[in-house]
Amino acid sequence: MSNTNVLPLIEPEPAAAAAPCCPPLTERPFSADEAETAARMFKALGDPVRLRLFSAVASHEGGEACVCDISDVGVSQPTVSHHLKKLKEAGLLTSERRGTWVYYRVEPSVLAAMGKLLAFGPAAA
Amino acid sequence: MSNTNVLPLIEPEPAAAAAPCCPPLTERPFSADEAETAARMFKALGDPVRLRLFSAVASHEGGEACVCDISDVGVSQPTVSHHLKKLKEAGLLTSERRGTWVYYRVEPSVLAAMGKLLAFGPAAA
Repeated sequence: MSNTNVLPLIEPEPAAAAAPCCPPLTERPFSADEAETAARMFKALGDPVRLRLFSAVASHEGGEACVCDISDVGVSQPTVSHHLKKLKEAGLLTSERRGTWVYYRVEPSVLAAMGKLLAFGPAAA
Repeated sequence: MSNTNVLPLIEPEPAAAAAPCCPPLTERPFSADEAETAARMFKALGDPVRLRLFSAVASHEGGEACVCDISDVGVSQPTVSHHLKKLKEAGLLTSERRGTWVYYRVEPSVLAAMGKLLAFGPAAA
């Protein structure tokens, strides 16, 4: 019995926006596709609670945190989980279950790509 | 007759988010106030049409553009104006009327502040 050529049943879903998508905002007008991808990332950070959770994960020791570490933002744990899911869907966080808890980690390539979007070229002030 | 000590009647409204508000996202968890300010900026860029308009202004010759220059994003001119107003309210654009047209310009200090938010410290990957 051979188990080569078996298609993997569950392919890990790549983060929606993990790849750098776009030139700096000041370089040229974005295409519709570029704008879709970049707007998804900005939108994910466009909520105060989500932004606090994101900075809590990003600044936590070792660059990762579980829900148990970051629940002091004044909302219920289901709400925290909901927002963390949104950040994951936007490709800004990755997650891994270990025992009881799910650990979240910032996806550095995405943050770097977003930082690049906002970088000014040499011509700009 | 003295006109010292007269309170200015119309103080120009400072751009809502013109001042750098926050440390890098990776430095420490954001406070509620910091998150409010930063989320407002991210949210303004969290719409594909708004992002295309913003990059159209940001990349236009001389760093400024009027509605007449940037209306090829597939939405009506009132919609364009609506989105430009939102970007202005978030402190990302400034505007100036000259004759028939209103000219929009990117507020570089705000973009720089947003870029700083996304900057990684030396410890991060």
